[in-house]
Amino acid sequence: MDRCQLWLTTEEIKPERLEDATVVVIDVLLATTTLVTIMERGARRIFPVENVEEAKQLKAKLNHSSILTGGEQGGKAVQGFDCAHLPDEYTPELVKDKDIIFLSSNGTRAISKAKQAQKLILGNLRNVNTVADYLNHASTKDVIIICAGSGGHFSLEDYVCANLILSRLNIEDVKLNDAALFALNHPYNSKEAIAELLAKGRVGRNLMKLGMEELFQFTVDIGASESNIGIQSEGELGFIPQKLRWE
Amino acid sequence: MDRCQLWLTTEEIKPERLEDATVVVIDVLLATTTLVTIMERGARRIFPVENVEEAKQLKAKLNHSSILTGGEQGGKAVQGFDCAHLPDEYTPELVKDKDIIFLSSNGTRAISKAKQAQKLILGNLRNVNTVADYLNHASTKDVIIICAGSGGHFSLEDYVCANLILSRLNIEDVKLNDAALFALNHPYNSKEAIAELLAKGRVGRNLMKLGMEELFQFTVDIGASESNIGIQSEGELGFIPQKLRWE
Repeated sequence: MDRCQLWLTTEEIKPERLEDATVVVIDVLLATTTLVTIMERGARRIFPVENVEEAKQLKAKLNHSSILTGGEQGGKAVQGFDCAHLPDEYTPELVKDKDIIFLSSNGTRAISKAKQAQKLILGNLRNVNTVADYLNHASTKDVIIICAGSGGHFSLEDYVCANLILSRLNIEDVKLNDAALFALNHPYNSKEAIAELLAKGRVGRNLMKLGMEELFQFTVDIGASESNIGIQSEGELGFIPQKLRWE
Repeated sequence: MDRCQLWLTTEEIKPERLEDATVVVIDVLLATTTLVTIMERGARRIFPVENVEEAKQLKAKLNHSSILTGGEQGGKAVQGFDCAHLPDEYTPELVKDKDIIFLSSNGTRAISKAKQAQKLILGNLRNVNTVADYLNHASTKDVIIICAGSGGHFSLEDYVCANLILSRLNIEDVKLNDAALFALNHPYNSKEAIAELLAKGRVGRNLMKLGMEELFQFTVDIGASESNIGIQSEGELGFIPQKLRWE
């Protein structure tokens, strides 16, 4: 790794900068947390899409009986979709061997905007160790960590996740942009302090208000997942095989 | 103050959100530092512009002999302009009673994009106390602190300046966005630590490489200025009169 950049919102994405880069897209609450969880629960593939129209067209094109549509727009379920965006909806029974077409306001928009990346993987608080491990062994000159943010603005939980990934990287002699440098100068050491901080954020407050403390605790369970999920050759999400991880 | 938001790049500016807001625009290295300094050294008015063409048209329109054009594009002096963007170029002898037309890559672009604000003032590290004092006494519901950033990305020095302003606000019961909440949870206490951090940032490193340590020390001299500079009725920058400050 020669260079490592942190971009704090989807608006910062410059697709032309990504062609030779390994990119991590983060949308902790909830897209990248839900997407990684859906794969862990047995889905075959996930197709991230940018809008409802793309979801409908893709469903017609794939044209088989094992497809589910899921996601949200503006935090609300999408009319006509099979599921919304909470991890708990995607039970192993429901998703086993299914193809999932998934849409979200910030997360899949960021994935779409960054899809020119040489490699693109998903980060969340649960899989930060695995993501950092992958980046440390990847044969890439450029690493770019992208926070999806929220409506074009900074999201607390996405930044904290990026901060944790950065603090786990072998970063000596690597050229950093200001945001990455800043994050590395302000490391986090305590899971409890992170959970407390994120509960004060916009989405954290909303989850608490809606009585979804259990879901919140699931999303802030740092290191609970060892899954490395990324874009495959056809643009769909799947597990990055171990043999590719140390190439 | 009911709500206080921090936006981290020019790209985050949503002009339609600014009409009832008091806005602070920050571009520490160097636009807002230079602009406040030019006013302190005796300029009559400063006209921030978005591009070279606008500068030329405005010069023709104002059509008098006491006009200076100044600024930079991509960090470089603009061909045909009288001055570039360093505070030191604008001596009291040069700028006294002059009208300055000023252009910068990030700072004046942010000012232009945010000019719909009910009130717009300039922040830099030198005048953080005065800016915070103004905001604490302003009769406004919405305060929005905007970091110009750099090329659409996060700038370390702009964020630190915003952090210092926020930490000086009477913020109890004020609704904060995630970036403002984050900044308030990570306050800075030491001038020395700030100078050390900012010297590691992209522009800080460049200044050091160019042997401009004195300029750097000038820009990080927190609290050295008591000037409150903002947009006046005709769109030009000038001192915000004391009688308006406590309305």
